[in-house]
Amino acid sequence: MSVYEKLAALHITLPQPVPPVAAFVPFVRTGNLLFLSGHIAMKDGKPWAGQLGLNLTTEQGSAAARSIAIDLMGTLHAALGDLNQIKRIVKLMVLVNSSPLFTEQHLVANGASELFARVFGDKGAHARSAFGVAQIPFGSCVEIELVAEV
Amino acid sequence: MSVYEKLAALHITLPQPVPPVAAFVPFVRTGNLLFLSGHIAMKDGKPWAGQLGLNLTTEQGSAAARSIAIDLMGTLHAALGDLNQIKRIVKLMVLVNSSPLFTEQHLVANGASELFARVFGDKGAHARSAFGVAQIPFGSCVEIELVAEV
Amino acid sequence: MSVYEKLAALHITLPQPVPPVAAFVPFVRTGNLLFLSGHIAMKDGKPWAGQLGLNLTTEQGSAAARSIAIDLMGTLHAALGDLNQIKRIVKLMVLVNSSPLFTEQHLVANGASELFARVFGDKGAHARSAFGVAQIPFGSCVEIELVAEV
Repeated sequence: MSVYEKLAALHITLPQPVPPVAAFVPFVRTGNLLFLSGHIAMKDGKPWAGQLGLNLTTEQGSAAARSIAIDLMGTLHAALGDLNQIKRIVKLMVLVNSSPLFTEQHLVANGASELFARVFGDKGAHARSAFGVAQIPFGSCVEIELVAEV
Repeated sequence: MSVYEKLAALHITLPQPVPPVAAFVPFVRTGNLLFLSGHIAMKDGKPWAGQLGLNLTTEQGSAAARSIAIDLMGTLHAALGDLNQIKRIVKLMVLVNSSPLFTEQHLVANGASELFARVFGDKGAHARSAFGVAQIPFGSCVEIELVAEV
Repeated sequence: MSVYEKLAALHITLPQPVPPVAAFVPFVRTGNLLFLSGHIAMKDGKPWAGQLGLNLTTEQGSAAARSIAIDLMGTLHAALGDLNQIKRIVKLMVLVNSSPLFTEQHLVANGASELFARVFGDKGAHARSAFGVAQIPFGSCVEIELVAEV
């Protein structure tokens, strides 16, 4: 199955990337590496606000991370025109808006990691850092940055 | 206009890079990529201490980010000898020392992003992640890490 | 002295890497770059829990960072089969689980940086970012991500 067939089987429609609300661009390619900007979790077109350990559960955080993975694939598609050109999802950096006692950032991050594994197979197996941050722009609950090899 | 003419038009003088106060180096080149260490905001030769949302405004944070961009250009100049050799500012990671409720990290980061855009033009359009951290070495208010393509 | 002779002189035994407790892999190689996942501090086979400024001293944090450096070398050895193939330790990102007032993340990070310098010599001189985060998976006190050139 191609990447797009897998997305269809998962009933996932890729979004049109939204231009960043700031003085930067959604991705930069250098050589065979594609660096994607940090994407924040969005819900119903607005920042998905909240903090893990305060007013969001780990399951909600994981769903937010999964939704960012879909947005990241939208940006990858916009960058390349064809997701099948991706040789490898190299690395994710997963920032979780965390209260002082929340320690399940890895479970939140799995919402994104598992989707990449399902959609890209072996090419989706990535290195990753996940950790708790004090805040995220617009109060969003999760932010993810990605590096891919083309 | 060359990069240096743009800097002169903006009345910006690049600093001599200060050796890191620790067991690392200000930059490492690998292939065509130049990785710069996180630079903390400095003011009058001392760490620019403070926290956004506590005792610094967004405007002050943005000014601190802009000052780091100048320091990063000083390091890029020291690394390459000629800023015109830069093909692209690839990526910034902007860490904002944030109180629990401060959510304008993107506006703080724009202080750096907009300066790179003005000085480098299209080559300055970069990917970016900005987020709020619990603290920064020496209590500095902002720290920025940069990747450039040569 | 080879890297392994230096490790022996320091009485350091490299661990077998533990598979990540999540949906990702410990490292990804792309071209000449090796991206290692964030490794959290472990003690006696369990996450080394604690927060700097709350219940751990800077010295303890530095020891935790040093122990992660050893684990990262274990992963590098597993990835390459021979640590002497490493051309350069390119970059560390050092995340320190920090209370709101702790500002010595650079001293904590030195625990890792100084070991890389001792083991790899000039090849161990790396770029670095160190900062304080709100939390780390499993409540670990330090997490480090690494990029190496092969």
